[in-house]
Amino acid sequence: MRTVAGDLGDALARVLRTEQQPPLVVAGRTDAGVHARGQVVHLDVDPQAFAGLAGRSGVDPVDSLVRRLAGVLAPDVVVRRARVVPAVFDARFSATGRRYRYRLGDGPHRPDPLERRHVHWVRDRLDAEAMARSAQLLLGEHDFVAFCRPRPGSSTVRTLRLVDVQRGSDDTVRVDLEADAFCHHQVRALVGALLEVGRRRRDEGWPAQVLAARRRDGAVQVAPAHGLTLTEVVYPPDDQLGAQAERARRRREAPA
Amino acid sequence: MRTVAGDLGDALARVLRTEQQPPLVVAGRTDAGVHARGQVVHLDVDPQAFAGLAGRSGVDPVDSLVRRLAGVLAPDVVVRRARVVPAVFDARFSATGRRYRYRLGDGPHRPDPLERRHVHWVRDRLDAEAMARSAQLLLGEHDFVAFCRPRPGSSTVRTLRLVDVQRGSDDTVRVDLEADAFCHHQVRALVGALLEVGRRRRDEGWPAQVLAARRRDGAVQVAPAHGLTLTEVVYPPDDQLGAQAERARRRREAPA
Repeated sequence: MRTVAGDLGDALARVLRTEQQPPLVVAGRTDAGVHARGQVVHLDVDPQAFAGLAGRSGVDPVDSLVRRLAGVLAPDVVVRRARVVPAVFDARFSATGRRYRYRLGDGPHRPDPLERRHVHWVRDRLDAEAMARSAQLLLGEHDFVAFCRPRPGSSTVRTLRLVDVQRGSDDTVRVDLEADAFCHHQVRALVGALLEVGRRRRDEGWPAQVLAARRRDGAVQVAPAHGLTLTEVVYPPDDQLGAQAERARRRREAPA
Repeated sequence: MRTVAGDLGDALARVLRTEQQPPLVVAGRTDAGVHARGQVVHLDVDPQAFAGLAGRSGVDPVDSLVRRLAGVLAPDVVVRRARVVPAVFDARFSATGRRYRYRLGDGPHRPDPLERRHVHWVRDRLDAEAMARSAQLLLGEHDFVAFCRPRPGSSTVRTLRLVDVQRGSDDTVRVDLEADAFCHHQVRALVGALLEVGRRRRDEGWPAQVLAARRRDGAVQVAPAHGLTLTEVVYPPDDQLGAQAERARRRREAPA
């Protein structure tokens, strides 16, 4: 099966001329079908291979890396930027936040065909204001186990900092979410719960009740993957990257 | 081969319960691979079939048509709106203008993967200001035969009202064009000529020289279909639809 990590590893091996794919550490693993516009990945590069990127022309090796990857990667995997980071940087554990956008279409017809692969169409008109109010009750630090597919040995306590529900033009509603990190399926399950409110099948307090009950509720439908995009990963200033990585490692690996 | 017209005809036959696909008249035929967000099509509907759309529920037959088509069409063909038009309306000949957008990406990496199917990536940084100045020299009524794949018995005289070249954020350049109508390949050939200017391979006056020469120039590369979208078809007020259709028919069918 083709994966973004597999494609990127292959491309890096070609561009860096290494025999094996370099090990990659990714900021936020995404389910199959979820898009990632703002994904971040780190890897260790042999200094000689790095110097080799510049060639004899003396261009910046990092610019050269981005250009060469563009020539090797398929059109659906794009490396936008690269930079040299402090050795303590960890793409996953140094991050202080992840931001996702879920795109919904709720018109009488399907979404714009040019956007059909990243907008989930619901046939019912959504009450975006009710969804927005309902979402506010979920903010803060909680055990989100009711919305997570738990992984053994991992905490499901997360801090949800933002859930912003906005109606856009042309029968679209977008949900922006930010947390320190999200557990598996959490964003899609949260959106699924809010959709029940938007469709007026449940009242505004229901998602918070599910959260408080701390166990999975069959009535929460995980929203389809294709509507979801990882839009941004947030990092602290360089001098706090190491300390943040330490903190996150301790917290995230605490027993559930 | 699957076509938008074929899909739409099939869906209309199902929804209107007719044995055969109803004949469709389309505002602007587009080459394979060109997108159309603002396409317009007209058809004659049997009054009984039209009344049948409302069913016993008394909903507006036009709303019912849009909803039923949404249930039948594939996700890449969307009917946004329908309306009853005066009998003199002709989707093709009543139109007073067509508007297209061509999307270009000129960054060091490929365009955003979510937009890769409607943005054409050129590897050279474009001089969008030079393209904009060059485009101004093409405005007005001209014989665009140098940019057209001629059709026998059809005029290639068109009135180009707008060519707007704008640099967007994130390494994108868009070209908006409007004319009374475009001949076959005209938009893509015009963009292809402007690209030569944007890449500094030709000077700003070159596209106008090609136009004035009134014959096809091998140096004009037709830009790829996937970057182009028909965004809007412009119609006059209802009381001028018939007269406009008459005028356009006479003009368009004048010998070249």
